[in-house]
Amino acid sequence: MKRNYDIDVLIEKFKKKDKIALARLITLVENNPETTTNIFNNFDSSENDSYIIGITGSPGVGKSTLVNAFSKILLENGKSIGIISVDPTSPFTGGAFLGDRVRMTDISLHPNIFIRSLASRGYKGGISRAVFDISLLYEAFGMDFIIIETVGVGQSEFDIYNLAYTTIVIMVPGYGDSIQIQKAGIIEVGDIYVVNKKDLGGEDIVVQMEMMLDDATVQSGWRAPVVMTNSITGEGVDKLIEKILYHKEHLELSELLKEKKKHRFAYKIEELLSSKIGKVLESLISEDDLNKISNSVLQGKKFKIYDMVHDLFSNVKFEMKKSD
Amino acid sequence: MKRNYDIDVLIEKFKKKDKIALARLITLVENNPETTTNIFNNFDSSENDSYIIGITGSPGVGKSTLVNAFSKILLENGKSIGIISVDPTSPFTGGAFLGDRVRMTDISLHPNIFIRSLASRGYKGGISRAVFDISLLYEAFGMDFIIIETVGVGQSEFDIYNLAYTTIVIMVPGYGDSIQIQKAGIIEVGDIYVVNKKDLGGEDIVVQMEMMLDDATVQSGWRAPVVMTNSITGEGVDKLIEKILYHKEHLELSELLKEKKKHRFAYKIEELLSSKIGKVLESLISEDDLNKISNSVLQGKKFKIYDMVHDLFSNVKFEMKKSD
Repeated sequence: MKRNYDIDVLIEKFKKKDKIALARLITLVENNPETTTNIFNNFDSSENDSYIIGITGSPGVGKSTLVNAFSKILLENGKSIGIISVDPTSPFTGGAFLGDRVRMTDISLHPNIFIRSLASRGYKGGISRAVFDISLLYEAFGMDFIIIETVGVGQSEFDIYNLAYTTIVIMVPGYGDSIQIQKAGIIEVGDIYVVNKKDLGGEDIVVQMEMMLDDATVQSGWRAPVVMTNSITGEGVDKLIEKILYHKEHLELSELLKEKKKHRFAYKIEELLSSKIGKVLESLISEDDLNKISNSVLQGKKFKIYDMVHDLFSNVKFEMKKSD
Repeated sequence: MKRNYDIDVLIEKFKKKDKIALARLITLVENNPETTTNIFNNFDSSENDSYIIGITGSPGVGKSTLVNAFSKILLENGKSIGIISVDPTSPFTGGAFLGDRVRMTDISLHPNIFIRSLASRGYKGGISRAVFDISLLYEAFGMDFIIIETVGVGQSEFDIYNLAYTTIVIMVPGYGDSIQIQKAGIIEVGDIYVVNKKDLGGEDIVVQMEMMLDDATVQSGWRAPVVMTNSITGEGVDKLIEKILYHKEHLELSELLKEKKKHRFAYKIEELLSSKIGKVLESLISEDDLNKISNSVLQGKKFKIYDMVHDLFSNVKFEMKKSD
C-alpha cells in the first residue's frame, strides 16, 4: 500500500523533528480525516504535553503581531512553538487572507516554530476537527507551546476556550469601549485581557475592564489581569508573557490544568458522538421527508412546524441495545 | 387549567392587536419552550407573511441607531414593525446591556412597532429558537416587517441569513478597512452593505467594497449595493430603504423569496433534528462513559481518542424501525 508506506516514511521523519514531515502530516490530516487514526496510532501516549494558549479578538486588533512578538521571546528562551491561525476564507482568494506566514516572517524561519494558517471554512469534519487534530500533531512533535489564534469570541465555528488552557482576549482602545467589552460577551472567557495599540490611548478601557473584573465572581481563584501592549514596539509583551506563565503556574498548582485538559478531550468526544449520531439520523430521515415538511410549511402551515417535526419522529423508533 | 385559560385570554387579546398580550406571549415562549406548540396552534396558517430583514455588524457600528432611523420612515409610511434585538448578556447586569429600548425611545412608543431585546445567552433551547419563535409571533400578530438585529456575522449563536430575506451588513470607516471586510467573511452574506458614520470618511472602504462585489460571482442575479449612511443625521437612510424595497421586489419577482422562506423553515427543521440528536446522545452515553474515556485520555492515551470513541459505538447497537 503506497499510501501507508508514505505515511510510515513521514512518521519516521516526523519523529526526527523534520518540519517538512510535520507540514505534510498536517495537510494529510486536514484533507483526509480518515487517515487521522492511522497517523495517531504511531504516537505513544503522553510523551509530551504541550501548553495550549488561545488568542482571540476582533479583526484588526493586532492578534498576529502580538503572537509574533511574544513567540519571539519564547523562542529566545529555548521554547518550541506550534501556531494555528484560523482566518476566515475570502471567497475571492480561496484561502487565508494576508497569510499569516507573510506577516510572521520575522519568526517563521526559526527551527523551533511551526505556523499553520487555516481558512475558516471548507474542512471535512469542520474547522474544529482540523484545529484539534493539528494540536495533537504539534503535541506529538514535542512542541512546548501551542498557540491558537482565532477571530472573535464565538465568531468562528469553534470556541477557543474549550481547547486552550490559557485564553487571551485582545481589545483595542476606542470604538465604544464599554460596548465593545459588554457586547462581545468576553468577560467570561478570558484568563488574561490585553489592550493592544496602547499608542492610541486605552487607559479608559483598562479602567473599565478592571472594574468589571473586580465585580465578577471569581470561581477559579484567578482574577484575570489586564495588560497594555504595543505589539509593534513590543512594549508590554514581556509583561504579557509573565502573566501567561503565572496563569500556567496557577493552573498547575490548583489542579485546574488537569480539569482543563479533561475538558479539552471531553469536548472533543462530545463532538465526535454528535457527528456519529447525526449520521445515523441522516440515514433515518430522508431528504424527501424534510422537503415534504418545508413544503407544507410554505403552503401555509408555518405555525404547525413543531407538530410536524414531532410527528416525523413519532413514526420512527429508536431501539438501542448495549452489548457487553 | 389556569395556565391554559390564561393563554386563551392572551390569544384573544393578541388577535385584537394588544401589544401587552404580544409581550406576555413572547415572554411565555422565551421562558417555556414547551408552551410554544400550544400557543402556535391558535394561529391559522399564513394569514400574514412578514418581510424579514436582518441587520448585522460588529459592536459599535451603529446598528440600533440605523434601525431606529429607518423604522421611523417605515412607520411614517403606515407599516407595522416587530424588532428583535440580540444583545450579548453581561454577567453583571444579567440582561441586555444598554437595553435597546432605551436607545430606541424615539420610536418605541409608536403603536405600530414592537421591540424585544434578547440577551444572547441563557434561553432554553438556545437564542436561535427564541428568535425563530418570536418571529413567528410577530407574523401572527400581523407585522409587515420583522427586523432582526444581531452582533457580527456568525458571532452570535445563530446565523442571521438563515432567517432573514434581506441581510444588511453594516461597517464603519477605518480600523483596517480591507481586513475588516475580508476577515469578517461578510462578502458572502450581505444583500446590502452599509458604510455608516460617513462623517468619519468611508470613501475608501466603499471603493474597496464595490471592487470586491464587482469581482464576486453573482449567482442570484443580485449585485449587492453599498450605501453610505449617517444614522444620527439620517443621511442616506432613505437610500437604504429604497435598496431594501428594491431587493424585496427582486426576490419576489425572481421567485427567490419562496426559496428564502423555504430555507428559513428548512433550517429550523434541521435545528430541531440536531436537538433531537443531542437528546438521543444523552440517553445513549452516560456521563460515566464519557468520564471513563476522558480519564483514560488524560492518563496518556490522547492519541487513541478516535479509537476509543469508535469502540464506544461498536458496543452500541442501533435498531431503528420506521412504522407507517
